[in-house]
Amino acid sequence: MGSEKTLVIGMFGFGVVGEGLYKVLKQTPSLKASIKKVCIKNTHKKRNAPASLFTADADELLNDPEINVIVEVINDSEVGYKVVTTALQNGKDVVSASKKMLSEHLPELIELQEKTGRSLLYEASACASIPVIRNLEEYYDNDLLHSIKAIVNGSTNFILTKMFEEELNFREALLLAQQLGFAESDPTLDIEGFDAANKWVLLLTHSYGIDTTIKDMLFNGITQITSLDAAVAQSRNQSIKLVAQAKKLQSGKVASFLLPQFVDQADQLYFVKNEYNGVVIETGFADKQFFYGKGAGSFPTASAVLSDIAALRYGYRYEYKKRNQQQPAELSDSYNLRVFISFESLANIPKDEFSSIEEWHSGNERSYLIGTIPYQSLIHQDWWKTNNNSLILMPNNIVENSEVNELKKMSLSLAGLEV
Amino acid sequence: MGSEKTLVIGMFGFGVVGEGLYKVLKQTPSLKASIKKVCIKNTHKKRNAPASLFTADADELLNDPEINVIVEVINDSEVGYKVVTTALQNGKDVVSASKKMLSEHLPELIELQEKTGRSLLYEASACASIPVIRNLEEYYDNDLLHSIKAIVNGSTNFILTKMFEEELNFREALLLAQQLGFAESDPTLDIEGFDAANKWVLLLTHSYGIDTTIKDMLFNGITQITSLDAAVAQSRNQSIKLVAQAKKLQSGKVASFLLPQFVDQADQLYFVKNEYNGVVIETGFADKQFFYGKGAGSFPTASAVLSDIAALRYGYRYEYKKRNQQQPAELSDSYNLRVFISFESLANIPKDEFSSIEEWHSGNERSYLIGTIPYQSLIHQDWWKTNNNSLILMPNNIVENSEVNELKKMSLSLAGLEV
Repeated sequence: MGSEKTLVIGMFGFGVVGEGLYKVLKQTPSLKASIKKVCIKNTHKKRNAPASLFTADADELLNDPEINVIVEVINDSEVGYKVVTTALQNGKDVVSASKKMLSEHLPELIELQEKTGRSLLYEASACASIPVIRNLEEYYDNDLLHSIKAIVNGSTNFILTKMFEEELNFREALLLAQQLGFAESDPTLDIEGFDAANKWVLLLTHSYGIDTTIKDMLFNGITQITSLDAAVAQSRNQSIKLVAQAKKLQSGKVASFLLPQFVDQADQLYFVKNEYNGVVIETGFADKQFFYGKGAGSFPTASAVLSDIAALRYGYRYEYKKRNQQQPAELSDSYNLRVFISFESLANIPKDEFSSIEEWHSGNERSYLIGTIPYQSLIHQDWWKTNNNSLILMPNNIVENSEVNELKKMSLSLAGLEV
Repeated sequence: MGSEKTLVIGMFGFGVVGEGLYKVLKQTPSLKASIKKVCIKNTHKKRNAPASLFTADADELLNDPEINVIVEVINDSEVGYKVVTTALQNGKDVVSASKKMLSEHLPELIELQEKTGRSLLYEASACASIPVIRNLEEYYDNDLLHSIKAIVNGSTNFILTKMFEEELNFREALLLAQQLGFAESDPTLDIEGFDAANKWVLLLTHSYGIDTTIKDMLFNGITQITSLDAAVAQSRNQSIKLVAQAKKLQSGKVASFLLPQFVDQADQLYFVKNEYNGVVIETGFADKQFFYGKGAGSFPTASAVLSDIAALRYGYRYEYKKRNQQQPAELSDSYNLRVFISFESLANIPKDEFSSIEEWHSGNERSYLIGTIPYQSLIHQDWWKTNNNSLILMPNNIVENSEVNELKKMSLSLAGLEV
C-alpha cells in the first residue's frame, strides 16, 4: 500500500459541500492534508474563509506543481468534466462529488485514469456518507452479488416519508422539504428521478461492471404518486419508496431499474426514513447486508470526500475488477415486472400488453390494477407516466420469462371491463 | 495496489466454516484461489470432499513453498496461535476467523506482521459477513469517530429476540437457539458474553487503536436477565440487547463496555433481530452509519473469509493507523453509567456507591432502581451479577463526571428504604 503522502489540495467550488470540507479538514489535523487554493466563479461573494484562499483562475490550481489532489465539488458538469480531465492529465489525483458529470463520462474517465496512472475517487457521489462504492469495489468484488437495492435520493425519501407519516400530499411534503433544506428551490432533478438515476449509473458500474447511461435506464421519480396510491400502500402495511434495483437473472444478465416501489415491513428499506439513504446487498453466501446513513447534506457529503482524500494517502484506486473481467455482466431487456398502476381511465392503459392481471379495483375517480408486464412495454415508452397514470412496483417485482406462463393461467381478463 | 497474485491455500480446520469456505470457493472460479491441502485432527472422519485433500500433518501445509495463504478456522486457540505465527514466519499470508486466539494475542501478532512483512486478515472474526473491520480501517480512519455501538453475538441476540417476541423465558429461548443451531450445546461462551468480549477487543483496536483484553473489560452476558426486566423493557416500548459500546469522552479518552442494554425504537439496533448483528458508527460529520448482516453461520462467516482472501490478491494489509498514531487513544476509568438494576434484596446493592437514584420500584419478589453509578463501582466487582441481581444499561448510559452533580440534586434518597 506504500507510504503516506502529504496531500496538498486544490478545490473547485465552495458551496455547501466545499465549505463543509473546509471545516472538516480543519478538525482533522492528523490527516496531513491541507487546502492550498479554492477556485470559485464569483470572487466578490463574502466567504467564511480567508480571501487569500480564493481565486477565479482555474489554471492557478491545475498548473501548480505543489498541488497533488484536485477536489471537484461544483454543480456545472461541463466545467467539472474539464477540471477533472485536465487534473488527471496534469498528473494530479482527483476526488469528485459530481454524480451527473461522472454518470455522463464514466467510461472515458476510467480510461483516462488508466492512461495517466492517477486515481479518481468519488465515494461522495452516491449515498454520501455510506461507503457503498468502496464496499462494492473491495468487499463484494466477486461473482456472488445476487442483487442490490438502494434508496439513493434523500429529498424524495424525505417527501415520501412525510406523505406517509404526516399524511401530507405531495405538494405539501415538497414545500416542507424545501423549507428544511432537503430539496432544492428547483426540485426537478430530485423529484423526477434524474439525481437518483445518475447515482445508479455509478453504482451499476461498481456492482456489476456494467456501463450504462440514464438515457437507457428505466426510471421515474415520485411526481405521479397520488393519495390513492399512498392509501393502498397503507392498507397493505407498506410504504412507497423510490428504489433503485439490480438483480442477476437466471440468464446471467442483470435486470436494472429505478422506480417507486411498495416496500413492506420485512424489508430493511422500510426503515430508511426522511433524508436518509440505505442499501441492501444480497450475496450468494452472506445473505443480506444493509448499509444505512445520511445520503445528503454538507457534512455527510464532505465526510465522504474526506474518506477519499484519506485513501489517496495510500495510493488507493478503484480497480474496476468486475468491469475488467473477461466477460463483464450485461443488462437484460428480457424479463417482466410486477406492477401496480393507478389511472383515471382504462383507455390510457395498454391492457393487452400485460402478461397477466392479478387484481383489479374500480373507483369513481381512480381505478387501479396489479399485474405483470414485460420490461419492453415500459422502457422507452411513457404511457405509464402520462395521462395521470401512476406506476409503482410491487415488493417482489422481477418475474422471469419462465414464470410468466404460470401467472397467465391465473390471470383475470380485462377484456370486458369498462371505465 | 500491485498486480493480481494466484493464491494457493492451505486450510486448518474443516468444521462449519471450513467446509463452507470449501463450497464457496468452488462457486467463485474468477477468484483464482484454490485449496491445496486441509489439515485436520481426525483423518478418519467422513468428509464431503476428496480424501486426498486432507492431512493431519501441519508441516505439510506450513512448509509447502507453493502454499502462499494459510486459512485458520479451528477452535483450539493455542493450536491456532501456533499455526498463525509459524505461517507468518514462513512467509505466508494468513486469514483467521479465531476471535479468541486473536483477542488474546493481537499486539504480538501485529508486531509479527510488521516484522515479516506478511498480512494477517480476520474480517470473519467479528460480525462475520458485515465488513466492519475493513470499514473501520479504511473508511473511519481519522479522528472523527465519536462512538461505535454493536450487537456482535448472534446467539444471545437470537435468545433475547425470542424472549421478547414470543415471551419465552431464558431457558426456553436458549433451548430453541440450540435446536436451530444458533447456539452451541455448551453455550457458556456465548451467553456469558465471552465470545462477544473477544470480538469487542478486536473492534476496539480497529475503532480507536486501543489494545486491551477481556480481563480488563467491563462485560457481562445475558444469563441474569429476568422476566421482570423484560416486562419493564416492554412497558417502555424498549427491548433488551447485548450491546458493545465505545465512546470518546470530553477528556479525549474512551469509555468502553459490553453489557445488556435497554434499546429504544429510535435506535437502529432495535431492528437487529434473531441471529443478525448490527453496528452503529457515529462520526463527527457523517452522523450515524448503520451496518447490518448475518453475524454467524457457515456461509456468512465463510464469505467474510473469502473477502479477505480476495483482498490478499492485491497485497492488502491492515495498516492499524489509529494504533500507530503518535498518541493513540486510551481507555477511561473515570465516568459513570446510568443503569437499571433489579434485585431480590436491597441488602445486596451497595446503594451508597450510586451518584444518584432517579427511580425506585419495590415489588414482592423483585424490586428495581434506576440510577447513576461510577464505572469504578462495577469494574472488577461482581455484586451486580451475583445474588440474583440483574444489571441492564439505560439507553443513554454514559454520564460524564461533570454531569453528575446536576443529577445528585434530583436524586431520591434510598437511605430510609427497606426491602
